Amino acid sequence: MIQRIDHLGVAVKDVEESTKFYRDVLGLETGELIEHHGMRMVFIKIGESNFELIEDGNPDSVIAKYIENKGEGIHHVSLIVDDIEAELKAVKEKGVTLIDEKARLGAEGFPVAFLHPKSTNGVLVEFCQKEE
Amino acid sequence: MIQRIDHLGVAVKDVEESTKFYRDVLGLETGELIEHHGMRMVFIKIGESNFELIEDGNPDSVIAKYIENKGEGIHHVSLIVDDIEAELKAVKEKGVTLIDEKARLGAEGFPVAFLHPKSTNGVLVEFCQKEE
Repeated sequence: MIQRIDHLGVAVKDVEESTKFYRDVLGLETGELIEHHGMRMVFIKIGESNFELIEDGNPDSVIAKYIENKGEGIHHVSLIVDDIEAELKAVKEKGVTLIDEKARLGAEGFPVAFLHPKSTNGVLVEFCQKEE
Repeated sequence: MIQRIDHLGVAVKDVEESTKFYRDVLGLETGELIEHHGMRMVFIKIGESNFELIEDGNPDSVIAKYIENKGEGIHHVSLIVDDIEAELKAVKEKGVTLIDEKARLGAEGFPVAFLHPKSTNGVLVEFCQKEE
């Protein structure tokens, strides 16, 4: 079962520079800088969800290539599910192509998996399971 | 003050076709089809937020041009504010360029206004005020 939006992943060129808009202009609560697999990330709380700003200096990375092709902007949406393996199995049975056949650990240490955007009309959807 | 994400606006080619993923695959609660200024829209509830699928058959429309340039996908994020005119004034004073200097009525009948993505590192942000 899908519970809520956990976060919007935003591809940015400079995570500190981009944080200013959310913190100083919008007045939102900004987390610490996280480094994970070469990415530099900041989570920003908004209601029950978050923005996840993501910078990746590696020009061959998914994030850098996204910015090269489409510019900075919203890269993916992450949805909280109660049982990620069951949910992946269920959507696959309904014809969805998976990027991650099995969940793996994401930047925050929770299991995550991506669906392929060709199955979702261009929206890159991540499932994430958190014990809450 | 920013309260929460009201919706993610998703640019789609065919709103009925795109609704199937959210309704039939994800099992989310889907609203009725809304027609507004030549656009065809469906809202889909997820937690305290929504997806807003938007189709626009006019090839000169903002949505059609977005799809032509970037493909289908997440077009904007709409944030609930408690006082939209005060919030627009505040972000303008902090250097943000506005697309809408004054709020106007959106598809759901609430006051809305867009900030310019050049001020927000590529994320098209809408403010929306709802009496709640």
